[in-house]
Amino acid sequence: MRDIIKQFGSSRNLPELENADILFLCVIASTGTSHIPAITGAGVTPELTDYTPAADVELVVHGEPRCLKEIPRTIIDGVVAPTPAVITKASLELANIPFLVADAGAAIKPDIPFMSINSEPGGNIETGKAVSNVEEIFNRGEILGETISRITDHLFIGESTPAGTTTALGVLTAMGYDGNYKVSGSMPNNPHELKQNIVASGLKASGFKVGELKSKPFKAVEIVGDPMIPAVAGIVAGCTIPVTLAGGTQMTAVCAIIKEVLPKFDWCNLSIATTRFVAEDETSDINYISRQIADTPIFAVDPQFEKSQSDGLKNYLKGSVKEGVGAGGAMMASILKGVSVDDIRMKTEQFCWELF
Amino acid sequence: MRDIIKQFGSSRNLPELENADILFLCVIASTGTSHIPAITGAGVTPELTDYTPAADVELVVHGEPRCLKEIPRTIIDGVVAPTPAVITKASLELANIPFLVADAGAAIKPDIPFMSINSEPGGNIETGKAVSNVEEIFNRGEILGETISRITDHLFIGESTPAGTTTALGVLTAMGYDGNYKVSGSMPNNPHELKQNIVASGLKASGFKVGELKSKPFKAVEIVGDPMIPAVAGIVAGCTIPVTLAGGTQMTAVCAIIKEVLPKFDWCNLSIATTRFVAEDETSDINYISRQIADTPIFAVDPQFEKSQSDGLKNYLKGSVKEGVGAGGAMMASILKGVSVDDIRMKTEQFCWELF
Repeated sequence: MRDIIKQFGSSRNLPELENADILFLCVIASTGTSHIPAITGAGVTPELTDYTPAADVELVVHGEPRCLKEIPRTIIDGVVAPTPAVITKASLELANIPFLVADAGAAIKPDIPFMSINSEPGGNIETGKAVSNVEEIFNRGEILGETISRITDHLFIGESTPAGTTTALGVLTAMGYDGNYKVSGSMPNNPHELKQNIVASGLKASGFKVGELKSKPFKAVEIVGDPMIPAVAGIVAGCTIPVTLAGGTQMTAVCAIIKEVLPKFDWCNLSIATTRFVAEDETSDINYISRQIADTPIFAVDPQFEKSQSDGLKNYLKGSVKEGVGAGGAMMASILKGVSVDDIRMKTEQFCWELF
Repeated sequence: MRDIIKQFGSSRNLPELENADILFLCVIASTGTSHIPAITGAGVTPELTDYTPAADVELVVHGEPRCLKEIPRTIIDGVVAPTPAVITKASLELANIPFLVADAGAAIKPDIPFMSINSEPGGNIETGKAVSNVEEIFNRGEILGETISRITDHLFIGESTPAGTTTALGVLTAMGYDGNYKVSGSMPNNPHELKQNIVASGLKASGFKVGELKSKPFKAVEIVGDPMIPAVAGIVAGCTIPVTLAGGTQMTAVCAIIKEVLPKFDWCNLSIATTRFVAEDETSDINYISRQIADTPIFAVDPQFEKSQSDGLKNYLKGSVKEGVGAGGAMMASILKGVSVDDIRMKTEQFCWELF
């Protein structure tokens, strides 16, 4: 399995997870930040990024988006890559893993039953006013984590939050972690300077300096974060079972919150699972960020899209999309359940052909 | 156990449920019908009934209501009885049974993480316009039922829907079942004529006759029902595990929907659990209604409140409240897990003393 799943970061062993029941939870959120032109590829236009989280999870549940006619996809310079929701759907269905959605503040609500943690989307962090009720979101997440711990053995948490690497950079920067040129992105050309300028504008507007909010994680989210971050941190805080954060550099911001809010947190129960496209990305460095925080184990799954017949999936190899909707973690969960990566790739291709 | 749990209706055996994992889901909803004066005791004033579902589930989760300063209670002629949420809370905590809430259309949203099936409350059925999106609610419930079937072995579904026996009477009447003088109520004096007049007004306003919607269950809910009914029916439809409907006569309306929408439904997996106060109520007859539909087994739990030191709980013996928030089913679930009814009663008393 070593060629499919590589371990980065801490080499500490995870709790025995084979044969465990798994639940996959996808936390969705929107922010005004994703309306900034050229900040994200997670939507055909800046305004359509409001629909991406709902469309993604509708695709996983119904096999098609309902809030949008168009399938979410990333188009950069004419290159089209399908939403990673297709990977998540293929992985979970092959392994018969239950899928739940939690709304942390999606602008458009999905046409499925979903767990409501928070309703209002986040603002544009350039204003220094991102999330008004961070502690409430964290606390509700904590209750959800407590409940989930009683109905499954191992929780995977994915996310769909357009422009989420920019808001993650905001939180990391406000808390004094160095994420400059290190956060990932959904486009082959990662607009690092734009992201850093947006974060700098938000900090300036709110009157805080870089690193000044080291010990005030909720304030950091309030001014330059997004609602997904405290929701996921809260869920982790409430969990008494192993949790795998299924995402890229955004999940390091979640770890930064947990480290500060819960100084006695048992990190042995937490890991990150992502795709090879994030872990080996030359335009970002999840390992560098993670080492500054809690050096969680980072598992990177390789779906071997070079073997694929789908041009859309092959565009992942060129740096499009990379991760999202917990695709890397969903693949890992599926593999833990005994599914082969070849089956995951072929089922993903099949969904792509049906959808596009 | 025979003196604590009596079985009415069908004597068919239930699937083996001992040692099964149990999940308790409470479905909440509001309607304009509960604003009709004197129709329900589930709120101190007609307008406050909008808060009752949220306050009930907040009480179970947080130990206190958050949307209201007052604890929900029924006051009839100066007699105060606490919300049945205290029984549900005591029962589930003693047995460590996880509690989830699903919103089918509560006017006030609870300050907890909850599963969103539908957001809009129902109308006043006197207008003949009760629920605008019945099929959508049913379909979302079905998806939730499918998911829940993969994370637990046995689902209990309670409800908090003020004036819900009136809307249940509406659905039963529109579908040709005889519920007149047979639906239960939260007050010692059951206002049967008022309920029947309201249903008659709704049918008249919508242009349908009694029994005319026998084969159109969604239309029956649309004109004279409430959003809880299709939500619970949909959840049951999606479930592949045993389900216990934790409620009184309202749950017979759910059975009526299921019977019509799913002609091949396997009734062996479905039962109703309620309190002795409903099953032996002289002002209503759940068994008479149920026999007309699918004659599901009805389990009635006796908390033996005559042994209680709490005057509020003793008022249940005089016909106040009777059931709600799945209290009867929660007691049964707890007893299935090995908890004694004496412990449930004493823990319920303890919550009453802490709260009032």
